[in-house]
Amino acid sequence: MPNARFPIAVVALEAAPRTKPSNHPEPFFSRMAGREKRPLGDLFGLANFGVNITRLVPGGCSALRHAHSKQDEFVYILAGHPILITDDGETQLAPGICAGFKAGNGNGHHLVNRADEDVLYLEVGDRSAGDAVSYPDDDLQAVLDQDGKWRFLDKNGASY
Amino acid sequence: MPNARFPIAVVALEAAPRTKPSNHPEPFFSRMAGREKRPLGDLFGLANFGVNITRLVPGGCSALRHAHSKQDEFVYILAGHPILITDDGETQLAPGICAGFKAGNGNGHHLVNRADEDVLYLEVGDRSAGDAVSYPDDDLQAVLDQDGKWRFLDKNGASY
Repeated sequence: MPNARFPIAVVALEAAPRTKPSNHPEPFFSRMAGREKRPLGDLFGLANFGVNITRLVPGGCSALRHAHSKQDEFVYILAGHPILITDDGETQLAPGICAGFKAGNGNGHHLVNRADEDVLYLEVGDRSAGDAVSYPDDDLQAVLDQDGKWRFLDKNGASY
Repeated sequence: MPNARFPIAVVALEAAPRTKPSNHPEPFFSRMAGREKRPLGDLFGLANFGVNITRLVPGGCSALRHAHSKQDEFVYILAGHPILITDDGETQLAPGICAGFKAGNGNGHHLVNRADEDVLYLEVGDRSAGDAVSYPDDDLQAVLDQDGKWRFLDKNGASY
């Protein structure tokens, strides 16, 4: 039965950008200024995972380098040449290359755009309950509250 | 800590194709002959959702038209011009267009390639327990066993 609540299909880059560039407290928030996420899965009412098409301008990064305890993540590069940084070092990516980040292994990852052209990629992450995020390079940790909101603490457990 | 079991990043089209084109019984199996899936998420050990890069040759289709009871699905067209068929009719897709298929609404969907060039798309689906699949156009239903294997029945519940 047709469902008028959701579109049938969407041109991804015409989807509305997320209005808030990051949920992080300062001084971390400002480091996300070069990133623009357009949620795609939400447009269709998907609940079990999220999909965004995300643009990184030159100098931008996908996130603070981080690892999830429960959430698997996946990225597929559509345009541009980001560098993937993990505990294994730096890996040059290019259009058509994908990477997956398995929950629970503690290997922090993020993409940085050191080139002079935009990077565009698809990112997928599931919505597992009880997720938590560790940040190997920053005095930060995050835990997912039961109401689905992220709570940010320093490494000693004090709230930001 | 580096994890040697999994690659850091992969050129998606260099990933190995799934060896078996479909789990369906005949006469449905043969209808999947024009489809080639390369599992991507599995390469990185992702467990909560699957991602494939899938090619449809001219005349190929993504699946029998179907709807999941529990699994959300998402597709992003990378190349070619498939037609998305749902209960709402036919929608012409093109590179850069995405669509999401919310679990549980019963709206059967599939992509068909009626053009003379290949279609290439990314598909994402979560791995919710207790999933079942309905096929509005075929005398078929499928249920996910507790061991993670699909069991195919006709609409009266008899096994194929």
